Amino acid sequence: MKLLVINPNISRDVTRLIESEAARSIRPGTELTLATAPFGVAYIETRAEALIGGYAAMQIAAEQHTYHDAIVVAAFGDPGLTALREIMPIPVVGMTEAALVSACQQGGRFSVIAISQRIQAWYRECIAAYGFAERLASIRALDEPLSHIGRVQEDQGERLVTLANQAVEQDGADVLILAGAPLAGLARTVADRLAVPALDGVTCALIQAQAMVDMQVASPIAGSYAPPPEKGCDGLGPALARLIGRHPAA
Amino acid sequence: MKLLVINPNISRDVTRLIESEAARSIRPGTELTLATAPFGVAYIETRAEALIGGYAAMQIAAEQHTYHDAIVVAAFGDPGLTALREIMPIPVVGMTEAALVSACQQGGRFSVIAISQRIQAWYRECIAAYGFAERLASIRALDEPLSHIGRVQEDQGERLVTLANQAVEQDGADVLILAGAPLAGLARTVADRLAVPALDGVTCALIQAQAMVDMQVASPIAGSYAPPPEKGCDGLGPALARLIGRHPAA
Amino acid sequence: MKLLVINPNISRDVTRLIESEAARSIRPGTELTLATAPFGVAYIETRAEALIGGYAAMQIAAEQHTYHDAIVVAAFGDPGLTALREIMPIPVVGMTEAALVSACQQGGRFSVIAISQRIQAWYRECIAAYGFAERLASIRALDEPLSHIGRVQEDQGERLVTLANQAVEQDGADVLILAGAPLAGLARTVADRLAVPALDGVTCALIQAQAMVDMQVASPIAGSYAPPPEKGCDGLGPALARLIGRHPAA
Amino acid sequence: MKLLVINPNISRDVTRLIESEAARSIRPGTELTLATAPFGVAYIETRAEALIGGYAAMQIAAEQHTYHDAIVVAAFGDPGLTALREIMPIPVVGMTEAALVSACQQGGRFSVIAISQRIQAWYRECIAAYGFAERLASIRALDEPLSHIGRVQEDQGERLVTLANQAVEQDGADVLILAGAPLAGLARTVADRLAVPALDGVTCALIQAQAMVDMQVASPIAGSYAPPPEKGCDGLGPALARLIGRHPAA
Amino acid sequence: MKLLVINPNISRDVTRLIESEAARSIRPGTELTLATAPFGVAYIETRAEALIGGYAAMQIAAEQHTYHDAIVVAAFGDPGLTALREIMPIPVVGMTEAALVSACQQGGRFSVIAISQRIQAWYRECIAAYGFAERLASIRALDEPLSHIGRVQEDQGERLVTLANQAVEQDGADVLILAGAPLAGLARTVADRLAVPALDGVTCALIQAQAMVDMQVASPIAGSYAPPPEKGCDGLGPALARLIGRHPAA
Amino acid sequence: MKLLVINPNISRDVTRLIESEAARSIRPGTELTLATAPFGVAYIETRAEALIGGYAAMQIAAEQHTYHDAIVVAAFGDPGLTALREIMPIPVVGMTEAALVSACQQGGRFSVIAISQRIQAWYRECIAAYGFAERLASIRALDEPLSHIGRVQEDQGERLVTLANQAVEQDGADVLILAGAPLAGLARTVADRLAVPALDGVTCALIQAQAMVDMQVASPIAGSYAPPPEKGCDGLGPALARLIGRHPAA
Repeated sequence: MKLLVINPNISRDVTRLIESEAARSIRPGTELTLATAPFGVAYIETRAEALIGGYAAMQIAAEQHTYHDAIVVAAFGDPGLTALREIMPIPVVGMTEAALVSACQQGGRFSVIAISQRIQAWYRECIAAYGFAERLASIRALDEPLSHIGRVQEDQGERLVTLANQAVEQDGADVLILAGAPLAGLARTVADRLAVPALDGVTCALIQAQAMVDMQVASPIAGSYAPPPEKGCDGLGPALARLIGRHPAA
Repeated sequence: MKLLVINPNISRDVTRLIESEAARSIRPGTELTLATAPFGVAYIETRAEALIGGYAAMQIAAEQHTYHDAIVVAAFGDPGLTALREIMPIPVVGMTEAALVSACQQGGRFSVIAISQRIQAWYRECIAAYGFAERLASIRALDEPLSHIGRVQEDQGERLVTLANQAVEQDGADVLILAGAPLAGLARTVADRLAVPALDGVTCALIQAQAMVDMQVASPIAGSYAPPPEKGCDGLGPALARLIGRHPAA
Repeated sequence: MKLLVINPNISRDVTRLIESEAARSIRPGTELTLATAPFGVAYIETRAEALIGGYAAMQIAAEQHTYHDAIVVAAFGDPGLTALREIMPIPVVGMTEAALVSACQQGGRFSVIAISQRIQAWYRECIAAYGFAERLASIRALDEPLSHIGRVQEDQGERLVTLANQAVEQDGADVLILAGAPLAGLARTVADRLAVPALDGVTCALIQAQAMVDMQVASPIAGSYAPPPEKGCDGLGPALARLIGRHPAA
Repeated sequence: MKLLVINPNISRDVTRLIESEAARSIRPGTELTLATAPFGVAYIETRAEALIGGYAAMQIAAEQHTYHDAIVVAAFGDPGLTALREIMPIPVVGMTEAALVSACQQGGRFSVIAISQRIQAWYRECIAAYGFAERLASIRALDEPLSHIGRVQEDQGERLVTLANQAVEQDGADVLILAGAPLAGLARTVADRLAVPALDGVTCALIQAQAMVDMQVASPIAGSYAPPPEKGCDGLGPALARLIGRHPAA
Repeated sequence: MKLLVINPNISRDVTRLIESEAARSIRPGTELTLATAPFGVAYIETRAEALIGGYAAMQIAAEQHTYHDAIVVAAFGDPGLTALREIMPIPVVGMTEAALVSACQQGGRFSVIAISQRIQAWYRECIAAYGFAERLASIRALDEPLSHIGRVQEDQGERLVTLANQAVEQDGADVLILAGAPLAGLARTVADRLAVPALDGVTCALIQAQAMVDMQVASPIAGSYAPPPEKGCDGLGPALARLIGRHPAA
Repeated sequence: MKLLVINPNISRDVTRLIESEAARSIRPGTELTLATAPFGVAYIETRAEALIGGYAAMQIAAEQHTYHDAIVVAAFGDPGLTALREIMPIPVVGMTEAALVSACQQGGRFSVIAISQRIQAWYRECIAAYGFAERLASIRALDEPLSHIGRVQEDQGERLVTLANQAVEQDGADVLILAGAPLAGLARTVADRLAVPALDGVTCALIQAQAMVDMQVASPIAGSYAPPPEKGCDGLGPALARLIGRHPAA
């Protein structure tokens, strides 16, 4: 099978991190196409940046999904996920949602370890929007400015492990989610220093994407995830316009 | 005071409806700037269309907010609202949120009357995201394709009144919200045929926007609605880039 | 327009505070009538005192609402608010509800700064009853006996600012509500020492009351806020009896 | 033991119904004092009437509680219940709360059968305030004006049984609550025509009140149900003033 | 009346503690039958142990319920409670549920004091399953291994009192539940050292069981607590098989 | 990899259905061990039957898990799932949980199609316990006695398709879950007659079990899913006793 993995942000360093970890999670015969957002921000911490990343992900998906079997949106917070799911004829999986459903299958409550203080509100709202608020034990986050988004693991690895252990000991986490594409791979490298299962969003997303393809579910033609009713549109680019509507002149 | 009213969609007919109703809701001395999305769809029914509309609203807000005292996002579902609120130095008000808070101050539970079946899931999720799910008595919606989005009131007025009365009699609504910019003004014209207060999103948004300006609240410099931390960005256009980040080369 | 502002408590000092702050929040042409409860307590900290204050507010509203366009119940916790809303033919606005809906339009989560430890349970239950529990970041309260209810701001101003800043830094508040009529005006005087918007319940209530009048909504004749079905009553005083029922002999 | 049973309404016919059913639920050695509200309405359907009934119940409790071991507030919706619980040195039990906790011990979800359409919103809000909203299968109510509140059972008995059976068959109720003091005794007389347990609020309240006395729990001196902090008051009547505060002159 | 009190665990020391406290809570004429699980664990801390205890309780109930008027499941967490309630023709009361409903009738929020750190997740899920999560102020628990389950009160009494007082002072508990059959009697012996009512699960369960018998409610023949539809079964033992189904050969 | 698939019920016909559908969902190299409960009921409709099935599943898992990589509990309602997860050193997946997390990755709200009226309460409580109540659009169920549990699909296939289509058209389901092991395979055979994705619990469970093995997560040594603290036990059988505790004599 063939998976399109979208980094909704402009950081190519992070795309390389995602690719490297994704490559460890695919089965023989699965191929990856990586795509980096042509516009947007270095990484998402806010609702505003998530909106930009979501629109960028939508453009990439519209343009590149052909010949793929599923799409992975590879930023924590899943920018654009439900929007893509409506318009794409193939399964769309998000890092956050995939990590959350995997966490729920391994424990009662989970904690999220995050890369900045500011990012917490956005994560909390995403988790609540999916309906998992009751199972969130805590979010714990780094509290220093990040010098380089592609080197957070090297620069802050010890501090992240400390936060993770605090979440287990003080917040009652049964499972840890090391959140954000910039942390791709960290769960694997520090697993033996943590007392509960630690999940990597990229790994979960890739595995769940392959699982979705395995299920061979049909695309809906009714309900709120059927393709949007055709309507006038303008300025969306040809690929997205084909999925969303008809041109105003039509 | 000066208000920027953004139609996140491309339909100029709907912009005219919004303007006409907005003009009835402003106090002496309040001025309006109307803006129509330069790209997007005719009207929003889905999560995908809301993402597009949100990004369009963000671009307009970034480019035109200077010299205004508040911004109104004039589409039900409030595309981009919380994103704009983070990056704008002035209050931002949404039609849905404004109608919901006004409804809560007049009754216990409210019903939403909507223009299409498909639009209901999107509305329901917006209302839940704001935390008002418990107060939603029902959503009732038209079930025929719309021949022209600028003439829904003329074409479907009687049917909309019937749905509204059913919401009161069968669903226990204390307040009605006639939802969607294409219905701007309908609440006023049919009020005397409804047994409970009927709210117009445009009216509520304009009145609440003026109330927000009256409150003279300071912009936050902490918390999750402070301006986003500066970070690298690319391809956002100069106005949005100034609000979001620094250029990658910086 | 003409607004009736009811202090549901017997403290005339607090009525003066309310009046002074209310006067700053009205538009040209708006007039205020202030009323102080003829029976009750100095200030409300408990469910029992709120019940007394609610009944006092109901008596005042019944007797004095004629020739007014809206009523403000000016005690945090909104004693009697929904009861008054059922029987009054004009909009009724509460300090708490008005502050909550204003807070929701400015941020994600809010904290309430309160004047006593005991008052917190009552506030928490009010906020939950309105459906805003999910958005409450914290309540922080003074923990010393109040020497004089009319001088809390002078006596405890510094401590209140400290609590407010702790709510932002430690509890994740995007907005602060400085709660209780005895704190009327404090949000304005300390705004520049707080990193997020700070709301004053009196200001919010007055502005929302004027907004409600602007909306010109009709009184309901159906639903759970229509006037109560007529029934036998006794001992309510003539004004309230006219609104509630018919005399037993009728 | 000695129980004070308060009818918060003025209808002496209903007091007699309550007394008659209460007498069947007491154990040897338990004595009853019945009290009828000296002011208020014939029966409670609305939030406004509940506020009046709550204040009346508070006055009666303050004046008559001495020499009693527990108090029962005998109107569905429990007007004044939590307020009385704060100021009384003995247990206070409400019909609704007692019926709800008894229902929870017998099944998963319950339905409430009520005497009027209008009363439903008030009941629904009470049940939600106690935290039992998730377990409420439905409220079904009579939809005709009541000719005499003391004769509802005779006049509408068949209709009430029909509503109760519909709640079981169509709404999934495991337990029925025949609500409202005017229905006291009905659960017993129609039990053999219902397929699930049917609870009478008066019976539940009397049995739970005796259970509370049996538990011999101490009155709190901390927490939100300790006696209110002493404060100035005026016009409350001597009995209530002794419980609530000190006189303004003090 | 005659009550069957089941200890779902194998510890006879704990059965003796339960019996001793139960004997203080019965009225003249009430008789007790105590039963100890013939298989299982010493005490329940986990979901796995609760499943074992639930199946043991079910076997005991099936074999011994005849000639009894009600059953008490005497382990906190109520193993098997709802299962027993479906198949038993008499009321079944659980220690946790009984303590929770009693707590709700005495205050707003309660804290649970528990015997081990591990036990907290199981308690939290039980409380949530009953729908009382919103009223749970905190769970506080011992953090040392228990040397002997029958002597926890003697060994850890002071520490338990300290935890209880912390729950009142720091967590806002209006009521305390001293949880777990091994703590039977502790609430009584330390009541005068606690500032709010303290409940003993055994006491609450015995009193509520007698209350249930007093109510004389009929067993359901519809709804989800009616006897299970007859179906094939095997290997359940004759008593349980009679209640659950018919033999496969039938 | 090697998966142990447990039918917690005694029906060998249903085990064959499970095996047949499971075989279609495994990847090359995955092997299945099927096990049928040695005691219990033909199929689970009630809380009591689920308790029995859970205990049977626990016994099988304890005895047969060695040399396996993951366990599947193959009855809707997931009897014993969280209990097994605590004591097993390998991942444990449930049909219901697996179907729910798969549904959440494909749509907003889902409906469950079930084989009997009685089974609905048990399903509803399971779904709520996992935290998915908000996403449940409806449960629709057959309303006739089942003549043979192994032939439900043949006997009631048309009726089940009708219920499924009603869930989409009337209840707003974006995804359908055809629930219960006796319906294994039906989703596949009727997929082209349904307008939204239809999920088979067996398929979802097998695919998620393989995904869990792919993730290579470590077993917890802290948190509420670590192995239970060692304690005295009796009568559990040697395999379960080794996992749960030490013998009383130890």
